[in-house]
Amino acid sequence: MDVTLRDVAMRDGLQIEEPISLDAKVELLQSICATGVTEVEVTAFVSPSKVPALADAAELCTQLGDFPDVRFSALVASVNGTRRALDSGVSNLEYVVSASDSHSRANVGRNTDASTALIDDIVGIAHDAGATLEVIIATAWDCPFDGPTPPERVTAIVTHAVAAGADRISIADTIGTTTPRRVTDLAAQVFPLIGDLPLGAHFHNTRGTGLASAYAAVQAGITRLDASVGGLGGCPFAPGASGNIATEDLVYLLRDCGIETGVDLDAAIRAGRVAIGAVGGGDGSALMRAGDRKLATGEPR
Amino acid sequence: MDVTLRDVAMRDGLQIEEPISLDAKVELLQSICATGVTEVEVTAFVSPSKVPALADAAELCTQLGDFPDVRFSALVASVNGTRRALDSGVSNLEYVVSASDSHSRANVGRNTDASTALIDDIVGIAHDAGATLEVIIATAWDCPFDGPTPPERVTAIVTHAVAAGADRISIADTIGTTTPRRVTDLAAQVFPLIGDLPLGAHFHNTRGTGLASAYAAVQAGITRLDASVGGLGGCPFAPGASGNIATEDLVYLLRDCGIETGVDLDAAIRAGRVAIGAVGGGDGSALMRAGDRKLATGEPR
Repeated sequence: MDVTLRDVAMRDGLQIEEPISLDAKVELLQSICATGVTEVEVTAFVSPSKVPALADAAELCTQLGDFPDVRFSALVASVNGTRRALDSGVSNLEYVVSASDSHSRANVGRNTDASTALIDDIVGIAHDAGATLEVIIATAWDCPFDGPTPPERVTAIVTHAVAAGADRISIADTIGTTTPRRVTDLAAQVFPLIGDLPLGAHFHNTRGTGLASAYAAVQAGITRLDASVGGLGGCPFAPGASGNIATEDLVYLLRDCGIETGVDLDAAIRAGRVAIGAVGGGDGSALMRAGDRKLATGEPR
Repeated sequence: MDVTLRDVAMRDGLQIEEPISLDAKVELLQSICATGVTEVEVTAFVSPSKVPALADAAELCTQLGDFPDVRFSALVASVNGTRRALDSGVSNLEYVVSASDSHSRANVGRNTDASTALIDDIVGIAHDAGATLEVIIATAWDCPFDGPTPPERVTAIVTHAVAAGADRISIADTIGTTTPRRVTDLAAQVFPLIGDLPLGAHFHNTRGTGLASAYAAVQAGITRLDASVGGLGGCPFAPGASGNIATEDLVYLLRDCGIETGVDLDAAIRAGRVAIGAVGGGDGSALMRAGDRKLATGEPR
């Protein structure tokens, strides 16, 4: 595969929604895994009172053995959450650090420096349990409260995370504001700091620029992209945030550009419909509305 | 300006809608011209029975003297339409040739070769009247009936148009299927054929890829882009077509990439609202929903 997609509908997609049943989550998970996607962010171990939609994280994780070919990960935001995730058998963790103080405080009640300092503890706990730890840098381009994020705030976290032994680094456009040149610019500043670690990116389509930014990321050498079936998504602690780039829209674009993801487009569109059904409605994705070009034009597929 | 935008809401946007009053059109035109856009495709001189929404083309053209700083153009599809446009005082014409036979027949009742052959007559009539003539190649990437368009069908039209003396060439993604690599590939085949003529491109956002394709076009050296305020648009003779890329979304992306268009983003968002109001509703653009990042983040503007 040229680019590894991670579907984040189960976590980023569901977190802003009214809680849905465990059965509905498992049905959505089945449809996502049926796409051929190799990585799924399945839940978060965070405060059940702050994010009630993901309060069943531990229970959901008991269902993951049915999908042996998928690499599951879960998001954590604290030492306590890290321990809960590990106790639930999750072996790939994502720890989020907001690069802007105001979003960091809104998201986890700490400023950026305090969250960055915690990386060491969390990497240690994860590695001691045999798990991997990815550091995701939120508000990497813009903060809904603090404005544009100085790139040096991002690179400082990256440097700290690499020194602490993080296994992966990702940069996230939490509120869907970034654009191709800013993606290229930030990637160029991050790559020299991470050695052989894979760099991932996470985009929301709030201003319609998510796919253009994702393609710019791939052109800049980023090999891992987050997306969500049906374009679900949004941060409950970032006003104005909206859906992630849709997995099916991204797959359509990348396929046409000769970039292999291993994800079946038709199956992703079906999973998008399951996702929209699970949350009781929504705009869905462009591909859900328009369908594969190859159907419209009668091309062999 | 680095990239010249042409707003096509008045033509491509309105052509699929129920006819609106001349007053409503003038109000929309005023809002579009207030954005600072320097080019506007204002109407089409085509069959009033086939495109009733544009039946008032001649009457609308009597209103254009109020906007001396804007280059207006009108679309034509026949010798008769060309004469009507010139009689109405339009001095910049666009003649459309579909690169696929089936869309060409559906659109104008002739196949591609017959439409291509007409370029000579139409250039001659336009130039004799002191008008410019742009050749727009529709279904340049895909046809809703014939499937993918072989690039040599596009380049054959380009070669003919250049030899006939056309003043401009544009390539149009009529049904919103193309993606960045295909844009880059086709542009690379067209550029060697056109000498110093400016190349334009026209994208629909049907599969969410319109902005990514537009940015790829700019990176490939294309300096003119069509877009429509509010994301209006669609071809009445191309099933599955949907809105053009929205002017305001494109301006947002290009501004952030350091590419100057001369279009004011706030004014474009306001014009988008006028456009959506004029046609009685619609999804509108991402920027209409989310607003400028600089408002969300409190940045100075």
